[in-house]
Amino acid sequence: MAVARTGPGYLVGLIGAGIGASLSPQLHEREADALGVRYLYRLLDLEVLGVPPRRVGDVLDAARLAGYDGLNLTHPVKQLVLDHLDELTPEAAAIGAVNTVVFTGGRSVGHNTDLTGFSRGLRTGLPDVALDRVVLLGAGGAGAAVGHALLSLGAKTLEVFDLEPARADGLAASLRERFGPDRVSPGRLGGGSLTAALEGADGLVHATPTGMAGRPGVPLPEELLRAEHWVADIVYRPLETDLLRTARARGCRVLDGGRMAVFQAAETFRIITGREPDPDRMLRHFADLAPNGDAEVRDRANR
Amino acid sequence: MAVARTGPGYLVGLIGAGIGASLSPQLHEREADALGVRYLYRLLDLEVLGVPPRRVGDVLDAARLAGYDGLNLTHPVKQLVLDHLDELTPEAAAIGAVNTVVFTGGRSVGHNTDLTGFSRGLRTGLPDVALDRVVLLGAGGAGAAVGHALLSLGAKTLEVFDLEPARADGLAASLRERFGPDRVSPGRLGGGSLTAALEGADGLVHATPTGMAGRPGVPLPEELLRAEHWVADIVYRPLETDLLRTARARGCRVLDGGRMAVFQAAETFRIITGREPDPDRMLRHFADLAPNGDAEVRDRANR
Repeated sequence: MAVARTGPGYLVGLIGAGIGASLSPQLHEREADALGVRYLYRLLDLEVLGVPPRRVGDVLDAARLAGYDGLNLTHPVKQLVLDHLDELTPEAAAIGAVNTVVFTGGRSVGHNTDLTGFSRGLRTGLPDVALDRVVLLGAGGAGAAVGHALLSLGAKTLEVFDLEPARADGLAASLRERFGPDRVSPGRLGGGSLTAALEGADGLVHATPTGMAGRPGVPLPEELLRAEHWVADIVYRPLETDLLRTARARGCRVLDGGRMAVFQAAETFRIITGREPDPDRMLRHFADLAPNGDAEVRDRANR
Repeated sequence: MAVARTGPGYLVGLIGAGIGASLSPQLHEREADALGVRYLYRLLDLEVLGVPPRRVGDVLDAARLAGYDGLNLTHPVKQLVLDHLDELTPEAAAIGAVNTVVFTGGRSVGHNTDLTGFSRGLRTGLPDVALDRVVLLGAGGAGAAVGHALLSLGAKTLEVFDLEPARADGLAASLRERFGPDRVSPGRLGGGSLTAALEGADGLVHATPTGMAGRPGVPLPEELLRAEHWVADIVYRPLETDLLRTARARGCRVLDGGRMAVFQAAETFRIITGREPDPDRMLRHFADLAPNGDAEVRDRANR
């Protein structure tokens, strides 16, 4: 049976490299179907198109000319796209990365819905955890969004680690600029600094690619995790990363990357269409789609 | 209620100038909805985009890069697009105009579904009329498709008229090349030549813009139309043109442009999706959408 659709429909895409397995098309399109909104979400994979990441502006221009309403951006173009936009939201400018572009009135506006995605994921997935002292592992584009989110949520102190010390320093500096000099410090991996940080910490957020499908492993020494810690991972493929499995075994409360993925998609959908998606329904869709570790998300989504 | 959709969805557009009122988006999308196919049809209006017609290749390239499956083309780019395509069907090459482009395996292939659209419209709308002697008024892009269609359908002789004599000569020459030298002749407006042609004719096909919304009028002296003639108009906005109203009043059997519009859309849909649309359902959709003169089409569609 056909569903009645109103309005002009929405055309949205994802620009990135090696994104063939992305769940975003189904996640967006199913929600649109549920709302009776015509919606098409296309993958614009730079590897398939044969376009080098530094030419992301070409794909952006093509999408704009070809009538796209908006775009998502992912690795490796979240920063590269900055030079090609007419405008940034204050959050996207502060984070220095864009994962959503909206074309409005001929102008391209860059947003960062990873920030709100992580915030809502943490608030709904681990609603009552302490944020007095939080450790952030990973200071890339995603880590930057997470850092801004944590401090916006009220984290009192945040210690930032990265395999590249300069990246940790840079993110710490930008966070201090926005949130004040006393709440953020860069740490150094090796030499016991991470051990010390976790000893006094309430929780840990992991924002590096370790644990993604094809890159298994736990990104820190297991013995640093204690039952008092909560542990959040932004990796969502698989949902049950080696880190989360280890943390759960050691008694930690854990949050997988599914909620962040879903809430950033919901926020992008809302910005582009002006329609309010149903995040719980999107969480259930996501649980249907996610390749493994689904049971956890499905349990939570059905509560 | 949401309809279950399978497959990746289709992204199709129309490139032309001043196409804001086109019915193609609804016509294609409603049929896709009825088939449970995700489908988005965008208007890429050169006037809105600020792109001159000679730069149609830019929009074509953008659509290809941005993941379009195919395009329709209309005035004024059906000929201009020829230089930008990798391949043409034999019909499109013979007609010298393209109204449909399909992107397959990185290549752009130009089709002309106006030809089959007119053929099926005539065969189903006026199934039993004689084609021994047919007069064609208008030798532009649409006239060329109609001329090829009429001779393919078995018209024994075709006389081609145009306000620009060179255009009538050119189309007649190309039709002779394909269908033999004895079946086609160019006529000259003025000097009694059209009068003589219609005296012995079975039917007349009108393929100029006269009679379109904003360009009212009858494109030939009314007294040349006799009750023995059938009269087909390719104009479909409005469906009931001044020509058809006059012809009907004079006792002629008439065919409006709705069927050609619908059947060309059905053929484009079939080429792009590989799915068989239901032309009768599309005719009913079209009757719902068409701005006036609907009753005629609706009657026929419901038969």
